[in-house]
Amino acid sequence: METPFDREMMQRCIHLAKKAQGQTAPNPLVGSVIVKEGQIIGEGFHPGAGQPHAEIFALRNAGEQARGATIYVNLEPCAHYGRTPPCTKALIEAGIAKVFLGMIDPDYRVCGKGIQQLQDAGIEVIVGVCEADCRKLNEAFIHRIRYQRPFGILKYAMTLDGKIAASTGHSAWVSGTASRKMVHQLRATCDAVIIGGNTVRRDNPYLTTHHEKAHNPLRVVMSRTLDLPLEAHLWETQEVSTLVFTEIKTNPTLHKQLLKHGVEVIELPVLSPATVMEHLYQKGLCSVLWECGGTLAAKAIADGAVQKIFAFIAPKIIGGNMAPSPVGDLGLEKMTDALELENVSIHSIESDLLIEGYLPKKAWLV
Amino acid sequence: METPFDREMMQRCIHLAKKAQGQTAPNPLVGSVIVKEGQIIGEGFHPGAGQPHAEIFALRNAGEQARGATIYVNLEPCAHYGRTPPCTKALIEAGIAKVFLGMIDPDYRVCGKGIQQLQDAGIEVIVGVCEADCRKLNEAFIHRIRYQRPFGILKYAMTLDGKIAASTGHSAWVSGTASRKMVHQLRATCDAVIIGGNTVRRDNPYLTTHHEKAHNPLRVVMSRTLDLPLEAHLWETQEVSTLVFTEIKTNPTLHKQLLKHGVEVIELPVLSPATVMEHLYQKGLCSVLWECGGTLAAKAIADGAVQKIFAFIAPKIIGGNMAPSPVGDLGLEKMTDALELENVSIHSIESDLLIEGYLPKKAWLV
Repeated sequence: METPFDREMMQRCIHLAKKAQGQTAPNPLVGSVIVKEGQIIGEGFHPGAGQPHAEIFALRNAGEQARGATIYVNLEPCAHYGRTPPCTKALIEAGIAKVFLGMIDPDYRVCGKGIQQLQDAGIEVIVGVCEADCRKLNEAFIHRIRYQRPFGILKYAMTLDGKIAASTGHSAWVSGTASRKMVHQLRATCDAVIIGGNTVRRDNPYLTTHHEKAHNPLRVVMSRTLDLPLEAHLWETQEVSTLVFTEIKTNPTLHKQLLKHGVEVIELPVLSPATVMEHLYQKGLCSVLWECGGTLAAKAIADGAVQKIFAFIAPKIIGGNMAPSPVGDLGLEKMTDALELENVSIHSIESDLLIEGYLPKKAWLV
Repeated sequence: METPFDREMMQRCIHLAKKAQGQTAPNPLVGSVIVKEGQIIGEGFHPGAGQPHAEIFALRNAGEQARGATIYVNLEPCAHYGRTPPCTKALIEAGIAKVFLGMIDPDYRVCGKGIQQLQDAGIEVIVGVCEADCRKLNEAFIHRIRYQRPFGILKYAMTLDGKIAASTGHSAWVSGTASRKMVHQLRATCDAVIIGGNTVRRDNPYLTTHHEKAHNPLRVVMSRTLDLPLEAHLWETQEVSTLVFTEIKTNPTLHKQLLKHGVEVIELPVLSPATVMEHLYQKGLCSVLWECGGTLAAKAIADGAVQKIFAFIAPKIIGGNMAPSPVGDLGLEKMTDALELENVSIHSIESDLLIEGYLPKKAWLV
């Protein structure tokens, strides 16, 4: 049904879609390619919420040539009026003859309807080209739709003996320059980065992508007491926004200071990873990167706020009985209760290792 | 100078040499192949101290055909009378025409003398075929000769969040069956395995290779107080020996009980990894595997008793602020002081990862 050429075109869709990584929430990442007689005659991607979908940019790019052509798109075209008219209508009107899709829309309320409309109009539809890659591209969006929560990624860097810092707390740097650059790239694909108050106090981080052209995620701090420094890199909000979650009526002095800096402060009756994720879901975020210490990381895991782990391992030994490790108490008493990661993949990043894997659903479906 | 065939023959020597892994101390692992007109006409390996060297077995195997033939051997033939006559003499008398060597004898007192004697007899000698592999084969022997200490290997298995047990101490099992089988094979290549009293009390391990045909290393326990259980798998010494190091006049009751079981007990004025390694060096051991907890592991590293690390990493999360990690206090206060491993290699062992690397010389040359 599908040829290597079709898969190549779908990979091109994925490549195009990624150009807007971190910028489309709550929408998915979508790229589209229109082909006629083996030649690409139009391309496009969805640049962000409120703007036209990928198919529309590709149709505009192809112009009149689209009539009788084949379109590739990594996600089922929408069939409803949202902020923009349905893409199915545009495809039918443009005279598209054949549609290759990566995957069906994960939203149970709409999935399959786009395909139905296209087929009703006499368009041939092939579903599931490079489906695994298409699903991975939009894993955060899919999770958001299915579970009404942002997709959580826990990232940490530890030594070969399992420490994220020396026993003194000193941690600059565990991993090498290539790994740290990769973390900056990872941030650029996420909608928010979260840390706890401890990390602000100890590391005074920027949490930016350190690249003028890259998207910067929203920087989020969780601090129950608002016991935070008056000055910090995170309070410089001209270029990148910062949002601080705290509990109600804590530290009014610092609260005012933060507002003066342009930091948004949200008071929650109960501050927890779950309540913060609920809020970020309502805010429309798809993906959230936890770059916190072990205590908050454990709470995030326990609250079901972590689906995926990026563990950087540097081949060095620091030692230290009291040196901090990446995940605090989870209440697991036996090694047989450990959360076994799924779909694990291993990457060499210069001398470091990156282990990427998914927490089992039972760990976060709370 | 050397051809792919020559390298193939040297790899065959290494393969033969490995048949005696764990059984040759204080001697090296040596294999030898004799070739005439492109055919192997004799092979042999050194089975253990006091027995003939590899070259002698190969010469015996080749018989009269050895005249005019080429011999391959991974280590420079000995040129002196030890427990056996010099191999150079045997090679010359057998009429060997050409010798390919993996590496020169690391003992500064004898290195090069074997080559000299062969060359003086008109035999062509080529040195350094697959030298890196030959050096790795005998890394423990080379270390022993050069530093008058056994070569120390620290092995541990930890979760992806850096814990060797849950916070309760429960650790069965961190790594998978394939990794544990590999540990048994690793033990078979070592002369001794060392643990501390804590591991005896908590895990009651066997520390054997769990294979009827495999060599079992000497099992060594370090216990300052001799506060050890009256019954333990390690006290069953019919098939595998156990040696307990302690300080002077500690717990005479248990001391007697151990002797009754056939366990050797050695009292040292000061019990430390360094004093134990000194004793094991005097005993003729080449390689020692540290399978201890984090406290003893840190002491062993600090004492220069660890040269190489085998870290098994299981892709699972157990959590726990107080869960033990593989290396205790080393007194390193800054991440920039961490001991960076050298010659790191990474292996996939089913779902686990094995990271193998060498501590930098500055870490152990104390």
